[in-house]
Amino acid sequence: MPIILNAFVMNTPSHLSPGLWRHPDDSSTAYTSLDHWIDLARLLERGRFSAMFLADTLGTYEAYAGSMAPAFRHGLHTPINDPLLLVPAMAAATTDLAFGVTCSASYEHPFSLARRFSTLDHLTGGRIGWNIVTSALDSAARNFGRPQQLDHEERYDRAEEYLEVCYKLWEGSWADDAVRRDKAGGLYAEPSRIRPIDHRGRYFEVAGPHLAEPSPQRTPVLYQAGASRRGRSFAARHAECIFVGAPSRAALRRTVDNLRTALAEAGRDPASVPIVAEHTVITAPSAAEAEDKRADYAGYASEDGALALMSGWIGVDLSRYRLDDPFEHVESNAIQSAVEAMSAADPGRVWTIREIAAWCGIGGLSPVTTGAPEAVADELEDWIASTGIDGFNLSYAVMDGGFRDFVELVVPVLEKSGRHPARYPPGTFREKLFGAGPRLPGSHPAAAFRFP
Amino acid sequence: MPIILNAFVMNTPSHLSPGLWRHPDDSSTAYTSLDHWIDLARLLERGRFSAMFLADTLGTYEAYAGSMAPAFRHGLHTPINDPLLLVPAMAAATTDLAFGVTCSASYEHPFSLARRFSTLDHLTGGRIGWNIVTSALDSAARNFGRPQQLDHEERYDRAEEYLEVCYKLWEGSWADDAVRRDKAGGLYAEPSRIRPIDHRGRYFEVAGPHLAEPSPQRTPVLYQAGASRRGRSFAARHAECIFVGAPSRAALRRTVDNLRTALAEAGRDPASVPIVAEHTVITAPSAAEAEDKRADYAGYASEDGALALMSGWIGVDLSRYRLDDPFEHVESNAIQSAVEAMSAADPGRVWTIREIAAWCGIGGLSPVTTGAPEAVADELEDWIASTGIDGFNLSYAVMDGGFRDFVELVVPVLEKSGRHPARYPPGTFREKLFGAGPRLPGSHPAAAFRFP
Repeated sequence: MPIILNAFVMNTPSHLSPGLWRHPDDSSTAYTSLDHWIDLARLLERGRFSAMFLADTLGTYEAYAGSMAPAFRHGLHTPINDPLLLVPAMAAATTDLAFGVTCSASYEHPFSLARRFSTLDHLTGGRIGWNIVTSALDSAARNFGRPQQLDHEERYDRAEEYLEVCYKLWEGSWADDAVRRDKAGGLYAEPSRIRPIDHRGRYFEVAGPHLAEPSPQRTPVLYQAGASRRGRSFAARHAECIFVGAPSRAALRRTVDNLRTALAEAGRDPASVPIVAEHTVITAPSAAEAEDKRADYAGYASEDGALALMSGWIGVDLSRYRLDDPFEHVESNAIQSAVEAMSAADPGRVWTIREIAAWCGIGGLSPVTTGAPEAVADELEDWIASTGIDGFNLSYAVMDGGFRDFVELVVPVLEKSGRHPARYPPGTFREKLFGAGPRLPGSHPAAAFRFP
Repeated sequence: MPIILNAFVMNTPSHLSPGLWRHPDDSSTAYTSLDHWIDLARLLERGRFSAMFLADTLGTYEAYAGSMAPAFRHGLHTPINDPLLLVPAMAAATTDLAFGVTCSASYEHPFSLARRFSTLDHLTGGRIGWNIVTSALDSAARNFGRPQQLDHEERYDRAEEYLEVCYKLWEGSWADDAVRRDKAGGLYAEPSRIRPIDHRGRYFEVAGPHLAEPSPQRTPVLYQAGASRRGRSFAARHAECIFVGAPSRAALRRTVDNLRTALAEAGRDPASVPIVAEHTVITAPSAAEAEDKRADYAGYASEDGALALMSGWIGVDLSRYRLDDPFEHVESNAIQSAVEAMSAADPGRVWTIREIAAWCGIGGLSPVTTGAPEAVADELEDWIASTGIDGFNLSYAVMDGGFRDFVELVVPVLEKSGRHPARYPPGTFREKLFGAGPRLPGSHPAAAFRFP
């Protein structure tokens, strides 16, 4: 089985390596330019990456020091531009690379979102995926007229209905044979093969029909990152691919096992859903050069930025602690796996907040593999073998050197070992991933809404 | 003064010439392909068009025969894909052409819309404009959970507040000097120069700050098409350019006069706001060839499609009349100017519904000028001189032959007469239009919200 390789990026100056935008080789501050993204897409396609995976957020971190100031200072997920609008230009410059785009099901209306993804599926020739998220930040909620986010359960209830609306629009509104484009007969589309969806639910009322004609994949490839119990069952029901993050093999193995169990409970073949894990690679022709590179990068990592990032994630203001406090004293359930990862790296040692901020300075809480290309390839294979994942969302220390090094040095090694394809499989994103047709399988819940 | 030339198009098979998608030379059915749009953008840039002006709708026509079926049959504004997503790929393939995109202020949340336009302003280097509309179709309202559209007055009340939210985000949230990108000092943006907007109004509550850093133009160039009294006063207050449509010189002159009066009443220099009018040109090297071309095109025009289009516009089901009924018997206020235009063309004659459907088959109700290049150029100049407009939103009979003929035949004539620039003026869309800076002038209502 080939390893799934995605590039994990965000339309912002600083994604998962706070402070690294200051590195002389880093081009992150060019994120507002089309050429920056087109060049990156071409690079990834040269390395036959499966997809560019774009994160997004609709609010600004404010947990650290109870202020948005650290996010602004470090360009940390703010400013952030719309990720969907990067896709068309990158699609025009590539032929096979897919694009997995994060869009929240919390604030945009599903009728508009469904048309956007249909449009992109058309324009990319079926190379689009949707990373479904429910926004967790109160600062995002306040941008959309709510004093705070919906509670966790209600967010997912609403997301379930949101997906139902999208499925009805994508799969159920236009029959496969609705569009005729019959110039001689003067029939663009046959009206009897198009129907409204007339959705009336708890959260949405949407009449339809869908405004977009059927696109190559109809429903975009569905990615989801479900960590909580409810998130897992949501992912188990809907996701075609699952994205996870865990800093240690043990934590990742547990996450993967829980997800495979949830998939089985949802009546799906647990092996049929690829799971990709966040990971960062620093590589160079030799081990020593790779270590030098890492040391150089670490010199640009921002402790303050890392603390702001972690505070945002765990919802705890780490500025209330002293930097030399043991990290395990921080009161949060969300940092268990980080503590565990640190302990695994050096059993018995007590790690301070300062030290974990340093850990988090490159690639966030994801594991960082540093080494010569062969060693990196071996290590990635070992992560797969020991945790049951199917591939990686690769983050970077330096944009776009991190991806360039990987493409030029590691990809040839993976290709030689038969774990990376020498050319792209044919077809849409879904066909490339699963080797079957461009549409969702009949067993997927969306299929229940298909035009009869 | 150069004539403003925009290309008026829509992300759909059939825009203003129902039936013409069936013409052998017509490529409209390729609207789902990126190359189709990139080629068109390059063609327009070769002709130094000011902008590609993209229409949009969020519902489907259903007035004619009380059914959506005619719209589907003729691909008439349905199916329709998202227009904003065309822009990035076209921007990457051009350097000066601007993009004026229609987005409704009725259904999308202003926080998301503001970020989308900021993103596009960044990615295009300041070549983006927004055609502000308030959706008028009940079928659109039903797609967004409302049984019918808001009434006319409330739509505009809401749009006023909508713009206020956008202005606060675009103009007032980030100071000009907020973004430092100071690698040495480790300061991406200075927090004290960024502020929330804390908007609390009748329709929206939006905290901010804006997620996007300041873009070249901040606020996109504001286009508006206001026909009603309220629409006119809205346009007079906000619009930097106004888009109108009228089939006769007399009707257009009246529309323009009313708008100039409204601009003066709003305290603005009436001459400072360019007005562009919908117009269709059919040209060929000789007058006879142009007439042949028009006759050929007319053979593909769809009477049924034209009746569906007109029914949608005037909100009257024309299928309830006989085709040989006099058009003036149709009970609608919205068709006065059409009747007037027909009467002007042939005073005293009684036009039937069938005849006006034929009129409407090419370019909708907009005037069609057919002729050799010099005659077309003279005619366009005469429309400007006799009505007070500043340019045209050019529609087409055949995609993209209509624009190709214009660029290759008429543009050189206009250029020779000094009414069309031999090269683009420098700068952003706004700078090209007005020769001043990239930002809105201090006299515009948006300027009141600027960061102090």
